Amino acid sequence: MPEQISEPTTSRLSLYLRFLNELDGRGVKTVSSKMLAEQFGLNAALIRKDLSNFGDLGVRGVGYVVEDLRRELRSILGLDRRLGVAIVGAGNLGLALADYPGFRQEGFRIVALFDNLQEKVGRISRSGVTIYDIRDLKPVARREGITIAVIAVPEASARDVLQTVVQAGIKAILNFSPGALRVPPHVKLKSVDLTVSLESLSFYLASEAGRGQQP
Amino acid sequence: MPEQISEPTTSRLSLYLRFLNELDGRGVKTVSSKMLAEQFGLNAALIRKDLSNFGDLGVRGVGYVVEDLRRELRSILGLDRRLGVAIVGAGNLGLALADYPGFRQEGFRIVALFDNLQEKVGRISRSGVTIYDIRDLKPVARREGITIAVIAVPEASARDVLQTVVQAGIKAILNFSPGALRVPPHVKLKSVDLTVSLESLSFYLASEAGRGQQP
Repeated sequence: MPEQISEPTTSRLSLYLRFLNELDGRGVKTVSSKMLAEQFGLNAALIRKDLSNFGDLGVRGVGYVVEDLRRELRSILGLDRRLGVAIVGAGNLGLALADYPGFRQEGFRIVALFDNLQEKVGRISRSGVTIYDIRDLKPVARREGITIAVIAVPEASARDVLQTVVQAGIKAILNFSPGALRVPPHVKLKSVDLTVSLESLSFYLASEAGRGQQP
Repeated sequence: MPEQISEPTTSRLSLYLRFLNELDGRGVKTVSSKMLAEQFGLNAALIRKDLSNFGDLGVRGVGYVVEDLRRELRSILGLDRRLGVAIVGAGNLGLALADYPGFRQEGFRIVALFDNLQEKVGRISRSGVTIYDIRDLKPVARREGITIAVIAVPEASARDVLQTVVQAGIKAILNFSPGALRVPPHVKLKSVDLTVSLESLSFYLASEAGRGQQP
Protein backbone atom coordinates (compact mmCIF):
# COMPACT_ATOMS: atom_id res chain seq x y z
CA MET A 1 0.00 0.00 0.00
CA PRO A 2 1.37 3.47 -0.82
CA GLU A 3 2.55 5.55 2.12
CA GLN A 4 0.45 8.64 1.45
CA ILE A 5 -3.04 8.61 0.00
CA SER A 6 -4.76 11.97 0.13
CA GLU A 7 -7.89 12.59 2.14
CA PRO A 8 -10.00 13.38 -0.98
CA THR A 9 -8.91 10.03 -2.45
CA THR A 10 -9.92 8.02 0.62
CA SER A 11 -13.27 9.88 0.65
CA ARG A 12 -13.82 8.89 -2.98
CA LEU A 13 -12.91 5.27 -2.19
CA SER A 14 -15.67 5.35 0.46
CA LEU A 15 -18.15 6.64 -2.08
CA TYR A 16 -17.16 3.99 -4.64
CA LEU A 17 -17.62 1.34 -1.95
CA ARG A 18 -21.10 2.62 -1.10
CA PHE A 19 -22.09 2.37 -4.76
CA LEU A 20 -20.53 -1.10 -5.11
CA ASN A 21 -22.63 -2.25 -2.13
CA GLU A 22 -25.70 -0.97 -3.94
CA LEU A 23 -24.71 -2.70 -7.22
CA ASP A 24 -23.99 -5.92 -5.34
CA GLY A 25 -27.42 -5.70 -3.71
CA ARG A 26 -28.97 -5.34 -7.18
CA GLY A 27 -27.04 -8.38 -8.46
CA VAL A 28 -24.80 -6.38 -10.83
CA LYS A 29 -21.58 -8.33 -11.47
CA THR A 30 -19.22 -5.87 -13.19
CA VAL A 31 -18.76 -2.11 -13.37
CA SER A 32 -16.67 0.12 -15.64
CA SER A 33 -14.78 3.24 -14.59
CA LYS A 34 -17.10 5.07 -17.02
CA MET A 35 -20.15 3.91 -15.04
CA LEU A 36 -18.52 4.97 -11.77
CA ALA A 37 -17.65 8.30 -13.38
CA GLU A 38 -21.26 8.92 -14.42
CA GLN A 39 -22.59 7.97 -11.00
CA PHE A 40 -20.37 10.48 -9.23
CA GLY A 41 -19.95 13.17 -11.88
CA LEU A 42 -16.20 12.52 -11.89
CA ASN A 43 -13.64 11.94 -14.62
CA ALA A 44 -13.15 8.23 -15.52
CA ALA A 45 -9.37 8.73 -15.63
CA LEU A 46 -9.41 10.04 -12.05
CA ILE A 47 -11.32 6.97 -10.91
CA ARG A 48 -8.88 4.62 -12.66
CA LYS A 49 -6.02 6.53 -11.06
CA ASP A 50 -7.61 6.30 -7.58
CA LEU A 51 -8.01 2.56 -7.93
CA SER A 52 -4.61 1.97 -9.55
CA ASN A 53 -3.01 3.29 -6.34
CA PHE A 54 -3.70 -0.11 -4.88
CA GLY A 55 -2.51 -2.44 -7.62
CA ASP A 56 -4.13 -3.78 -10.72
CA LEU A 57 -7.81 -4.11 -9.77
CA GLY A 58 -9.34 -3.77 -13.24
CA VAL A 59 -9.90 -6.43 -15.90
CA ARG A 60 -9.28 -5.29 -19.48
CA GLY A 61 -12.51 -5.09 -21.51
CA VAL A 62 -14.66 -5.86 -18.45
CA GLY A 63 -13.88 -3.07 -15.99
CA TYR A 64 -14.04 -4.19 -12.41
CA VAL A 65 -15.66 -7.28 -10.92
CA VAL A 66 -18.03 -5.77 -8.34
CA GLU A 67 -17.49 -8.44 -5.70
CA ASP A 68 -13.68 -8.33 -6.00
CA LEU A 69 -13.45 -4.54 -6.04
CA ARG A 70 -15.81 -4.34 -3.08
CA ARG A 71 -13.74 -6.79 -1.03
CA GLU A 72 -10.55 -5.00 -2.03
CA LEU A 73 -11.89 -1.55 -1.08
CA ARG A 74 -13.17 -2.87 2.27
CA SER A 75 -9.71 -4.22 2.98
CA ILE A 76 -7.97 -1.00 1.84
CA LEU A 77 -10.27 1.06 4.06
CA GLY A 78 -9.63 -1.27 6.99
CA LEU A 79 -13.28 -2.27 7.20
CA ASP A 80 -12.59 -6.00 7.32
CA ARG A 81 -11.35 -5.57 10.89
CA ARG A 82 -14.66 -4.66 12.59
CA LEU A 83 -13.18 -1.64 14.38
CA GLY A 84 -14.62 -0.74 17.78
CA VAL A 85 -15.99 2.79 18.11
CA ALA A 86 -16.82 4.78 21.25
CA ILE A 87 -19.05 7.84 21.17
CA VAL A 88 -18.27 10.42 23.81
CA GLY A 89 -21.29 12.57 24.67
CA ALA A 90 -24.73 10.96 25.05
CA GLY A 91 -26.72 14.05 24.07
CA ASN A 92 -28.91 14.26 20.97
CA LEU A 93 -25.96 14.13 18.60
CA GLY A 94 -24.19 11.25 20.36
CA LEU A 95 -27.40 9.22 20.52
CA ALA A 96 -28.13 9.96 16.85
CA LEU A 97 -24.64 8.79 15.89
CA ALA A 98 -24.97 5.64 18.03
CA ASP A 99 -28.09 4.75 16.03
CA TYR A 100 -26.74 5.87 12.62
CA PRO A 101 -27.29 2.80 10.44
CA GLY A 102 -24.43 3.55 8.01
CA PHE A 103 -21.76 2.89 10.63
CA ARG A 104 -22.96 -0.64 11.30
CA GLN A 105 -23.60 -1.39 7.65
CA GLU A 106 -19.93 -0.82 6.91
CA GLY A 107 -18.79 -3.07 9.73
CA PHE A 108 -18.00 -0.63 12.51
CA ARG A 109 -18.94 -1.84 15.99
CA ILE A 110 -20.42 1.00 18.07
CA VAL A 111 -19.53 -0.52 21.43
CA ALA A 112 -20.04 2.22 23.98
CA LEU A 113 -21.36 5.71 24.71
CA PHE A 114 -19.75 7.85 27.40
CA ASP A 115 -21.06 10.80 29.38
CA ASN A 116 -20.24 12.65 32.58
CA LEU A 117 -23.87 13.04 33.70
CA GLN A 118 -24.50 10.38 36.32
CA GLU A 119 -28.21 10.15 35.49
CA LYS A 120 -27.33 8.98 31.97
CA VAL A 121 -24.74 6.40 33.02
CA GLY A 122 -26.08 2.85 32.81
CA ARG A 123 -28.83 3.67 30.34
CA ILE A 124 -28.96 2.00 26.94
CA SER A 125 -29.54 3.69 23.56
CA ARG A 126 -32.33 2.65 21.19
CA SER A 127 -29.87 0.52 19.23
CA GLY A 128 -28.61 -1.17 22.40
CA VAL A 129 -25.42 0.78 23.18
CA THR A 130 -24.67 1.19 26.91
CA ILE A 131 -23.80 4.64 28.32
CA TYR A 132 -20.71 4.48 30.55
CA ASP A 133 -19.12 7.02 32.89
CA ILE A 134 -16.47 8.99 30.98
CA ARG A 135 -14.08 8.23 33.87
CA ASP A 136 -14.18 4.56 32.80
CA LEU A 137 -13.12 5.29 29.22
CA LYS A 138 -9.65 3.76 29.50
CA PRO A 139 -10.62 0.37 30.99
CA VAL A 140 -13.73 0.04 28.79
CA ALA A 141 -11.70 0.99 25.69
CA ARG A 142 -9.14 -1.67 26.52
CA ARG A 143 -11.74 -4.35 27.30
CA GLU A 144 -13.90 -3.65 24.24
CA GLY A 145 -11.07 -3.04 21.78
CA ILE A 146 -12.07 0.55 21.03
CA THR A 147 -9.76 2.13 18.45
CA ILE A 148 -11.87 5.10 17.29
CA ALA A 149 -13.54 7.75 19.45
CA VAL A 150 -16.26 10.10 18.21
CA ILE A 151 -16.47 13.39 20.11
CA ALA A 152 -20.03 14.69 20.30
CA VAL A 153 -19.91 17.08 23.25
CA PRO A 154 -20.50 20.85 23.48
CA GLU A 155 -17.58 23.08 22.48
CA ALA A 156 -16.87 24.04 26.11
CA SER A 157 -16.07 20.41 27.06
CA ALA A 158 -14.29 19.37 23.86
CA ARG A 159 -10.71 20.06 24.96
CA ASP A 160 -11.03 18.13 28.22
CA VAL A 161 -12.74 15.24 26.49
CA LEU A 162 -10.06 15.16 23.81
CA GLN A 163 -7.37 14.90 26.47
CA THR A 164 -9.22 12.05 28.19
CA VAL A 165 -9.54 10.22 24.86
CA VAL A 166 -5.85 10.61 24.01
CA GLN A 167 -4.85 9.50 27.51
CA ALA A 168 -6.97 6.38 27.06
CA GLY A 169 -4.64 5.43 24.18
CA ILE A 170 -7.16 5.99 21.36
CA LYS A 171 -5.35 7.05 18.18
CA ALA A 172 -8.16 7.96 15.78
CA ILE A 173 -10.74 10.60 16.62
CA LEU A 174 -13.76 11.94 14.75
CA ASN A 175 -14.74 15.32 16.16
CA PHE A 176 -18.14 16.98 15.73
CA SER A 177 -17.46 19.82 18.14
CA PRO A 178 -16.90 23.25 16.57
CA GLY A 179 -13.64 25.04 17.30
CA ALA A 180 -10.01 24.10 16.69
CA LEU A 181 -8.53 21.15 18.58
CA ARG A 182 -4.93 19.99 18.56
CA VAL A 183 -3.64 16.46 19.04
CA PRO A 184 -0.19 14.88 19.42
CA PRO A 185 1.44 13.74 16.15
CA HIS A 186 0.69 10.03 16.71
CA VAL A 187 -3.07 10.74 16.88
CA LYS A 188 -5.27 11.27 13.80
CA LEU A 189 -8.04 13.82 14.31
CA LYS A 190 -10.74 14.38 11.73
CA SER A 191 -13.23 17.17 12.34
CA VAL A 192 -16.65 17.27 10.73
CA ASP A 193 -17.80 20.86 10.36
CA LEU A 194 -21.51 20.70 9.56
CA THR A 195 -21.61 24.43 8.90
CA VAL A 196 -19.38 23.98 5.83
CA SER A 197 -22.08 21.85 4.19
CA LEU A 198 -24.78 24.38 4.92
CA GLU A 199 -22.59 27.17 3.59
CA SER A 200 -22.10 25.42 0.28
CA LEU A 201 -25.89 25.56 -0.13
CA SER A 202 -25.93 29.19 0.91
CA PHE A 203 -23.26 29.86 -1.72
CA TYR A 204 -25.41 28.08 -4.30
CA LEU A 205 -28.45 30.20 -3.44
CA ALA A 206 -26.38 33.40 -3.50
CA SER A 207 -24.95 32.63 -6.94
CA GLU A 208 -28.40 31.61 -8.25
CA ALA A 209 -29.78 34.95 -7.02
CA GLY A 210 -26.87 36.69 -8.77
CA ARG A 211 -27.66 34.89 -12.03
CA GLY A 212 -31.36 35.69 -11.70
CA GLN A 213 -30.63 39.40 -11.68
CA GLN A 214 -28.92 39.24 -15.04
CA PRO A 215 -30.93 40.13 -18.15
CA MET B 1 -18.93 36.47 -9.49
CA PRO B 2 -17.79 33.54 -11.65
CA GLU B 3 -20.49 31.16 -12.84
CA GLN B 4 -18.91 27.95 -11.60
CA ILE B 5 -16.92 27.62 -8.38
CA SER B 6 -16.14 24.03 -7.47
CA GLU B 7 -17.49 22.41 -4.32
CA PRO B 8 -14.00 21.89 -2.82
CA THR B 9 -13.35 25.63 -3.31
CA THR B 10 -16.53 26.71 -1.52
CA SER B 11 -15.69 24.29 1.31
CA ARG B 12 -12.27 25.89 1.63
CA LEU B 13 -13.83 29.38 1.63
CA SER B 14 -15.95 28.23 4.60
CA LEU B 15 -12.85 27.03 6.43
CA TYR B 16 -11.03 30.31 5.76
CA LEU B 17 -14.04 32.19 7.11
CA ARG B 18 -14.09 30.10 10.30
CA PHE B 19 -10.42 30.93 10.88
CA LEU B 20 -10.97 34.62 10.09
CA ASN B 21 -13.74 34.70 12.71
CA GLU B 22 -11.25 33.28 15.19
CA LEU B 23 -8.56 35.81 14.22
CA ASP B 24 -11.08 38.63 14.46
CA GLY B 25 -12.07 37.43 17.94
CA ARG B 26 -8.39 37.52 18.94
CA GLY B 27 -8.04 41.06 17.57
CA VAL B 28 -5.71 40.08 14.71
CA LYS B 29 -5.96 42.70 11.93
CA THR B 30 -4.20 41.15 8.90
CA VAL B 31 -3.42 37.67 7.62
CA SER B 32 -1.13 36.41 4.84
CA SER B 33 -1.89 33.57 2.45
CA LYS B 34 1.16 31.86 4.02
CA MET B 35 -0.49 31.99 7.45
CA LEU B 36 -3.72 30.60 6.02
CA ALA B 37 -1.68 27.91 4.26
CA GLU B 38 0.01 26.85 7.49
CA GLN B 39 -3.27 26.78 9.39
CA PHE B 40 -4.89 24.43 6.90
CA GLY B 41 -1.89 22.49 5.61
CA LEU B 42 -2.58 23.84 2.11
CA ASN B 43 -0.44 25.45 -0.55
CA ALA B 44 -0.34 29.29 -0.32
CA ALA B 45 -0.73 29.56 -4.11
CA LEU B 46 -3.95 27.53 -3.95
CA ILE B 47 -5.33 29.88 -1.31
CA ARG B 48 -4.44 32.97 -3.36
CA LYS B 49 -6.09 31.34 -6.35
CA ASP B 50 -9.26 30.52 -4.36
CA LEU B 51 -9.53 34.12 -3.20
CA SER B 52 -8.61 35.68 -6.55
CA ASN B 53 -11.74 34.03 -8.01
CA PHE B 54 -13.66 36.88 -6.44
CA GLY B 55 -11.61 39.90 -7.41
CA ASP B 56 -8.56 41.51 -5.90
CA LEU B 57 -8.98 40.93 -2.17
CA GLY B 58 -5.31 41.04 -1.16
CA VAL B 59 -3.13 44.03 -0.35
CA ARG B 60 0.45 43.79 -1.61
CA GLY B 61 2.97 43.43 1.24
CA VAL B 62 0.18 43.11 3.82
CA GLY B 63 -1.80 40.08 2.78
CA TYR B 64 -5.47 40.36 3.61
CA VAL B 65 -7.22 42.69 6.02
CA VAL B 66 -9.09 40.26 8.31
CA GLU B 67 -12.23 42.36 8.66
CA ASP B 68 -12.51 43.05 4.91
CA LEU B 69 -11.81 39.47 3.86
CA ARG B 70 -14.27 38.20 6.43
CA ARG B 71 -17.04 40.51 5.21
CA GLU B 72 -16.24 39.61 1.61
CA LEU B 73 -16.32 35.86 2.28
CA ARG B 74 -19.60 36.17 4.18
CA SER B 75 -21.08 37.97 1.22
CA ILE B 76 -19.66 35.46 -1.31
CA LEU B 77 -21.08 32.58 0.74
CA GLY B 78 -24.44 34.33 0.95
CA LEU B 79 -24.26 34.55 4.75
CA ASP B 80 -25.17 38.23 4.90
CA ARG B 81 -28.75 37.31 4.02
CA ARG B 82 -29.70 35.43 7.23
CA LEU B 83 -31.12 32.45 5.35
CA GLY B 84 -34.03 30.60 6.93
CA VAL B 85 -33.48 26.88 7.54
CA ALA B 86 -36.03 24.15 8.27
CA ILE B 87 -35.04 20.81 9.76
CA VAL B 88 -37.26 17.91 8.76
CA GLY B 89 -37.21 15.11 11.31
CA ALA B 90 -37.34 15.91 15.03
CA GLY B 91 -35.51 12.78 16.19
CA ASN B 92 -32.12 12.83 17.92
CA LEU B 93 -30.31 14.01 14.80
CA GLY B 94 -32.82 16.73 13.92
CA LEU B 95 -32.84 18.04 17.49
CA ALA B 96 -29.04 17.97 17.61
CA LEU B 97 -28.88 19.96 14.37
CA ALA B 98 -31.48 22.46 15.62
CA ASP B 99 -29.20 23.14 18.59
CA TYR B 100 -25.90 23.06 16.66
CA PRO B 101 -24.27 26.37 17.59
CA GLY B 102 -22.21 26.70 14.39
CA PHE B 103 -25.31 27.28 12.24
CA ARG B 104 -26.41 30.30 14.25
CA GLN B 105 -22.89 31.67 14.60
CA GLU B 106 -22.66 31.96 10.83
CA GLY B 107 -25.99 33.74 10.54
CA PHE B 108 -28.38 30.97 9.57
CA ARG B 109 -31.83 31.20 11.16
CA ILE B 110 -33.08 27.76 12.23
CA VAL B 111 -36.75 28.67 12.08
CA ALA B 112 -38.65 25.40 12.27
CA LEU B 113 -38.51 21.66 12.88
CA PHE B 114 -40.97 19.34 11.15
CA ASP B 115 -42.13 15.83 12.02
CA ASN B 116 -45.02 13.53 11.20
CA LEU B 117 -45.46 12.23 14.75
CA GLN B 118 -48.40 14.11 16.25
CA GLU B 119 -47.06 13.80 19.80
CA LYS B 120 -44.01 15.83 18.78
CA VAL B 121 -45.90 18.58 16.97
CA GLY B 122 -46.14 21.79 19.01
CA ARG B 123 -43.15 20.98 21.22
CA ILE B 124 -40.14 23.28 21.30
CA SER B 125 -36.47 22.27 21.11
CA ARG B 126 -33.94 23.27 23.76
CA SER B 127 -32.80 26.19 21.62
CA GLY B 128 -36.40 27.36 21.12
CA VAL B 129 -37.29 25.95 17.70
CA THR B 130 -40.94 24.88 17.31
CA ILE B 131 -41.82 21.46 15.89
CA TYR B 132 -44.51 21.72 13.18
CA ASP B 133 -46.54 19.09 11.37
CA ILE B 134 -44.75 18.10 8.15
CA ARG B 135 -48.09 18.65 6.33
CA ASP B 136 -47.70 22.37 7.10
CA LEU B 137 -44.26 22.65 5.50
CA LYS B 138 -45.36 24.70 2.51
CA PRO B 139 -47.28 27.48 4.36
CA VAL B 140 -44.71 27.66 7.18
CA ALA B 141 -41.85 27.80 4.66
CA ARG B 142 -43.53 30.65 2.84
CA ARG B 143 -44.39 32.57 6.03
CA GLU B 144 -40.95 32.15 7.62
CA GLY B 145 -38.88 32.62 4.46
CA ILE B 146 -37.35 29.14 4.57
CA THR B 147 -34.91 28.61 1.69
CA ILE B 148 -32.91 25.61 2.95
CA ALA B 149 -34.24 22.29 4.25
CA VAL B 150 -32.19 19.80 6.23
CA ILE B 151 -33.40 16.20 5.93
CA ALA B 152 -32.78 14.23 9.13
CA VAL B 153 -35.23 11.34 8.84
CA PRO B 154 -34.66 7.57 8.62
CA GLU B 155 -33.72 6.19 5.21
CA ALA B 156 -37.19 4.64 4.73
CA SER B 157 -38.91 8.07 4.82
CA ALA B 158 -36.27 10.08 2.97
CA ARG B 159 -37.77 9.85 -0.53
CA ASP B 160 -41.26 10.95 0.58
CA VAL B 161 -39.83 13.78 2.66
CA LEU B 162 -37.65 14.93 -0.22
CA GLN B 163 -40.72 15.11 -2.46
CA THR B 164 -42.62 17.14 0.14
CA VAL B 165 -39.69 19.54 0.46
CA VAL B 166 -39.37 20.04 -3.29
CA GLN B 167 -43.13 20.55 -3.61
CA ALA B 168 -42.93 23.24 -0.94
CA GLY B 169 -40.68 25.19 -3.31
CA ILE B 170 -37.44 24.79 -1.34
CA LYS B 171 -34.45 24.77 -3.68
CA ALA B 172 -31.50 23.89 -1.44
CA ILE B 173 -31.43 20.68 0.59
CA LEU B 174 -28.90 19.23 3.00
CA ASN B 175 -29.48 15.51 3.38
CA PHE B 176 -28.22 13.37 6.28
CA SER B 177 -30.14 10.27 5.29
CA PRO B 178 -28.07 7.42 3.81
CA GLY B 179 -28.96 6.14 0.35
CA ALA B 180 -29.10 7.87 -3.03
CA LEU B 181 -31.71 10.58 -3.62
CA ARG B 182 -32.48 12.37 -6.86
CA VAL B 183 -33.81 15.91 -7.29
CA PRO B 184 -35.02 17.99 -10.24
CA PRO B 185 -32.31 20.08 -11.96
CA HIS B 186 -33.43 23.37 -10.35
CA VAL B 187 -32.86 21.97 -6.85
CA LYS B 188 -29.43 21.68 -5.20
CA LEU B 189 -29.01 18.60 -3.00
CA LYS B 190 -25.98 18.10 -0.81
CA SER B 191 -25.67 14.83 1.07
CA VAL B 192 -23.54 14.43 4.18
CA ASP B 193 -22.34 10.85 4.49
CA LEU B 194 -21.02 10.49 8.02
CA THR B 195 -19.66 7.04 7.24
CA VAL B 196 -17.12 8.55 4.84
CA SER B 197 -15.50 10.44 7.72
CA LEU B 198 -15.32 7.35 9.89
CA GLU B 199 -13.83 5.38 7.02
CA SER B 200 -11.02 7.86 6.53
CA LEU B 201 -10.01 7.12 10.13
CA SER B 202 -10.33 3.42 9.51
CA PHE B 203 -8.07 3.83 6.49
CA TYR B 204 -5.55 5.69 8.65
CA LEU B 205 -5.52 2.91 11.25
CA ALA B 206 -5.20 0.24 8.54
CA SER B 207 -2.23 1.98 6.92
CA GLU B 208 -0.61 2.59 10.33
CA ALA B 209 -0.96 -1.12 11.10
CA GLY B 210 0.58 -1.92 7.70
CA ARG B 211 3.53 0.34 8.47
CA GLY B 212 3.93 -1.20 11.92
CA GLN B 213 4.43 -4.63 10.41
CA GLN B 214 7.37 -3.47 8.35
CA PRO B 215 10.89 -4.15 9.69
